[in-house]
Amino acid sequence: MNIIQNRIAALRVEMEKYRLDAYYISGTDPHSSEYLPERWQTRRFISGFTGSYGVIIVTRYEAILWTDSRYFLQAEEQLQGTGIQMQKLRVSNAVSPEEWLLQNLKSGSRVGIDTQTISVSSFRLFQNVLNGKNIVVAEVPDLLDLIWKNRPQLSQNPVFELSPENTGLFRREKHEQLMHKLELRDADIQVITMLDELAWLLNLRGSDIDYNPVFTGYGWIEKDKTVLFIDKNKVPGKVAENLQSDDVEIKSYHEFYSFLKTVKGKRIFLDAGTACYSVFNLLKTENEIIEGTSVAAHLKARKNTVETEGFKKAMLKDGVALVEFLAWLNHHLEKDEITEYTAGEKLKELRAKQPGFMGESFHPIVGYKNHGAIVHLSVNAEDALQLQREGILLFDSGGQYLEGTTDITRTVALGEITEQQKIDYTLVLKGMIALTNAVFPAGTKGCHLDILARKALWKNGLNYGHGTGHGVGHFLNVHEGPMAIRQEYNENAIEPGMVLSNEPGLYREGEYGIRIENMIVCVEKQLTGSGTFYGFETLTLCPIDTTLIKIELLTTDEKHWLNEYHKIVNRTLKPVLKRELHNFLDELTREI
Amino acid sequence: MNIIQNRIAALRVEMEKYRLDAYYISGTDPHSSEYLPERWQTRRFISGFTGSYGVIIVTRYEAILWTDSRYFLQAEEQLQGTGIQMQKLRVSNAVSPEEWLLQNLKSGSRVGIDTQTISVSSFRLFQNVLNGKNIVVAEVPDLLDLIWKNRPQLSQNPVFELSPENTGLFRREKHEQLMHKLELRDADIQVITMLDELAWLLNLRGSDIDYNPVFTGYGWIEKDKTVLFIDKNKVPGKVAENLQSDDVEIKSYHEFYSFLKTVKGKRIFLDAGTACYSVFNLLKTENEIIEGTSVAAHLKARKNTVETEGFKKAMLKDGVALVEFLAWLNHHLEKDEITEYTAGEKLKELRAKQPGFMGESFHPIVGYKNHGAIVHLSVNAEDALQLQREGILLFDSGGQYLEGTTDITRTVALGEITEQQKIDYTLVLKGMIALTNAVFPAGTKGCHLDILARKALWKNGLNYGHGTGHGVGHFLNVHEGPMAIRQEYNENAIEPGMVLSNEPGLYREGEYGIRIENMIVCVEKQLTGSGTFYGFETLTLCPIDTTLIKIELLTTDEKHWLNEYHKIVNRTLKPVLKRELHNFLDELTREI
Repeated sequence: MNIIQNRIAALRVEMEKYRLDAYYISGTDPHSSEYLPERWQTRRFISGFTGSYGVIIVTRYEAILWTDSRYFLQAEEQLQGTGIQMQKLRVSNAVSPEEWLLQNLKSGSRVGIDTQTISVSSFRLFQNVLNGKNIVVAEVPDLLDLIWKNRPQLSQNPVFELSPENTGLFRREKHEQLMHKLELRDADIQVITMLDELAWLLNLRGSDIDYNPVFTGYGWIEKDKTVLFIDKNKVPGKVAENLQSDDVEIKSYHEFYSFLKTVKGKRIFLDAGTACYSVFNLLKTENEIIEGTSVAAHLKARKNTVETEGFKKAMLKDGVALVEFLAWLNHHLEKDEITEYTAGEKLKELRAKQPGFMGESFHPIVGYKNHGAIVHLSVNAEDALQLQREGILLFDSGGQYLEGTTDITRTVALGEITEQQKIDYTLVLKGMIALTNAVFPAGTKGCHLDILARKALWKNGLNYGHGTGHGVGHFLNVHEGPMAIRQEYNENAIEPGMVLSNEPGLYREGEYGIRIENMIVCVEKQLTGSGTFYGFETLTLCPIDTTLIKIELLTTDEKHWLNEYHKIVNRTLKPVLKRELHNFLDELTREI
Repeated sequence: MNIIQNRIAALRVEMEKYRLDAYYISGTDPHSSEYLPERWQTRRFISGFTGSYGVIIVTRYEAILWTDSRYFLQAEEQLQGTGIQMQKLRVSNAVSPEEWLLQNLKSGSRVGIDTQTISVSSFRLFQNVLNGKNIVVAEVPDLLDLIWKNRPQLSQNPVFELSPENTGLFRREKHEQLMHKLELRDADIQVITMLDELAWLLNLRGSDIDYNPVFTGYGWIEKDKTVLFIDKNKVPGKVAENLQSDDVEIKSYHEFYSFLKTVKGKRIFLDAGTACYSVFNLLKTENEIIEGTSVAAHLKARKNTVETEGFKKAMLKDGVALVEFLAWLNHHLEKDEITEYTAGEKLKELRAKQPGFMGESFHPIVGYKNHGAIVHLSVNAEDALQLQREGILLFDSGGQYLEGTTDITRTVALGEITEQQKIDYTLVLKGMIALTNAVFPAGTKGCHLDILARKALWKNGLNYGHGTGHGVGHFLNVHEGPMAIRQEYNENAIEPGMVLSNEPGLYREGEYGIRIENMIVCVEKQLTGSGTFYGFETLTLCPIDTTLIKIELLTTDEKHWLNEYHKIVNRTLKPVLKRELHNFLDELTREI
């Protein structure tokens, strides 16, 4: 037995003690985090799969990982020899974990879940689906804790404060905004379980999780005070003082659940989509629970002008680093040995030269040729492909700057390219432009807009298996809610101030991948007799490879958009770009 | 007090007996019908409002009608002097009936609902929203029955059978299809409460409701038999014999609820969105209820080839009647006095000349000038506007033919028109064409496609307040589910065989209205490595007024579509159109 098989065997021993026929591993932490601290890398621990999304079910005789199309290839590879089967999510005829359990377990079976690591709505879904067949959903402790030797402790890294010059609002102002919104929902209190909401609300940042400048904690927000549950030795003295003077009381992270047990007779707002079931469970009997999309998440998503201006500053830095990267690539491609891995390192190095750089916003994805078709590729130095003067390279990367978070994908020709590559690239570009130019009335949701980015591909019988746009935090998580631009229904409308990615793509397995990604911010366009209309403004400042475009496929309007975009990129980057790259920038942004 | 005020006062007396603080009138019948038999015109009885959509709440001191933008103008007019207030639905900041009750009733209040006339899901919504504030949702009898003197009885019109030549499938085949789908859902039985599903399943039609060729009844479908609950004297002997030989047992309509009380230990499928709560309530304790979109509705919506070919035959007849109408309009506009009302009568008269005509599919909407802005206008002979050689006329009408149901809207210039009218018309036309030309992968839902019909309008700060497309039955209801093309999320994907309307519009209150509506059928386009892609084929055959088009706003592709469409209309209609109209048709379909 290999290491993964051993772990699964050990888990089955623990399952037996709780008379469980299946154990569900959500793959997240008590904060519904996407990026996880080492302690909560449960999916990786039990399966060896390193993708950022997936849930696992272990039964007496089987083990299954569910993940989505971003990770189909990667999961297949990483699960080899583990005995774990992959199930595909978000494909037609997908069988969800709860449906799989319904089909595979007998009536009277028991499924164990650690309710610290599952959201209220996911837990309810399991109950609703499984109770019909008399399958018990049992709340059990974290069984992995019993078999995970030397499980990492939570990080003790200190938190730090952001100045209102960067955040645009004092934490007292954010508290006021939040309380105002809670009043409209007839609630007195919001429980904050998401780490980015907590960081945003308190103007604090941390480094407990790779790429996401957050810290592990909970928040309890009421009218006259905020309680921050955090390991106290993570809070430097000066920060603690400042928090106290803003009526933020600090309690230990481990006191949170015992605190909840003491709460009675309150009207408490929580987001059933992100709060874990154990929090809800402790509060529901003695209090009135008001559910909805987190008020904090919604406030956070609509950036204020200081934040939006900050993003623009961050984009300027990012743009310089990216043009330097393109120049480096161009210059060294034939002379030196460049691999996907070293190209990713270079991206980091060039961003790191920029002032205010706080780290990468995610692990860069650099995919050459067939690797480009692996949507969330992660290569190490050993299995990275060497870049040559041919084919196309996709790179998706981003930086954390004090002024904002960036996320950009470009696909570039390294040498000769095929007609099909040009057509594919142009269809993806058409989608990216169409979404950028959308005009839509207040109330429009992401699922209404998604088709704009796909229409040109659909016309040609092509598609991509991931969403089109995710929210991006302000010096926070590169993926944030509550809204998104994708086919799945999401009740949160796209509203002014929301910063999103716009990233259609096309992937030909075994051949190449194309993705073009800009960040955009929703802005008000006009007020008419039919109401208020919104649109987008592009934040990202980086040339889009025109040598990959089949120009005759673009409409006049699309060409106009691209040329105008390149004028802006040229005009904005040139003053801050070193002189020897000016000609190169001119070339990259030349009118088509 | 006027008659409406008297009725509301009488209702309040009955409410008092049940200690109700509010009484909810869903405005529908036990079959979730949109078009209602006289007996169930409860909304009209209590309010005087004749629109096809609206719910009413009467409290001790207030009475409110909720309706949507199709009826804002009409409701305002018809509610005058009744004391009933209008609340707008489907607008931003709309307050739904249950939210209104939550805001306006005190804790401990009682809201009465006749559960025969509310769907399971609506009833649950009321309970979920109101129970939080400790407001009781009380199941009470139909209180209107107590105050409605000479309330009409249910119709005794006979049902008639359709031949498989028209339906494409024997009722035994439909039964088999249904049972197969139920098996996949682990159900033994489906309760059919919707009248069009019942008519479709049994290849029967009736005339109990204006415009909808259905009959009042319930269906109980199990493996070896079907039970049809219907007033027995509505079933002619020969039909009864045929039904019996297909294992359809006939029981009295009034036996339905007592029958349900006897059912035990079954796995019963029902559609919580359309089945009334009283049906669910009788079954839920002793049986397993499996919920989902009605299997019958889904089978019915995907037309078979005989039905689709039937639609095409119906369209040919409809097209002839419409060209005759346009010629009549053109010829008589100056000579005779034509009003909106007589134009509507003429549409009916011309359709009635066509073989297989079974009646109109809805009351025609003929709106001249400012009347065109009233989306679901209903004028009588007295207040109809007289048509003149100026401005624009909108007419929306349809026929029931044995081969299929039609629904078409055209907007035509009667004389001089303004630049704004041309721009508006062209933007609407662009939307209609864009939706027609959609190509989309399997699984795409109506809410994803809706933007195609609105995009050109949105770009110009314009919009319309109704959905873009509804399902159309095959010689059945002109509005049918389960899918729709509109902004609201609807989980039922658009699939091959589904017949839908495509009807963007634009309404300038007090000035004019524009709507262009074709019927389209979803067809398979291609199978690629990315899956199966669908698109639409246009069914409607009728010229689109080109004199209202601002040609320079159309793209080459749009012009091409219009010219091709007109070629098809010309080529298809000419052989069946009387010779003296050939030149007129040529003129109407001339290339632009």
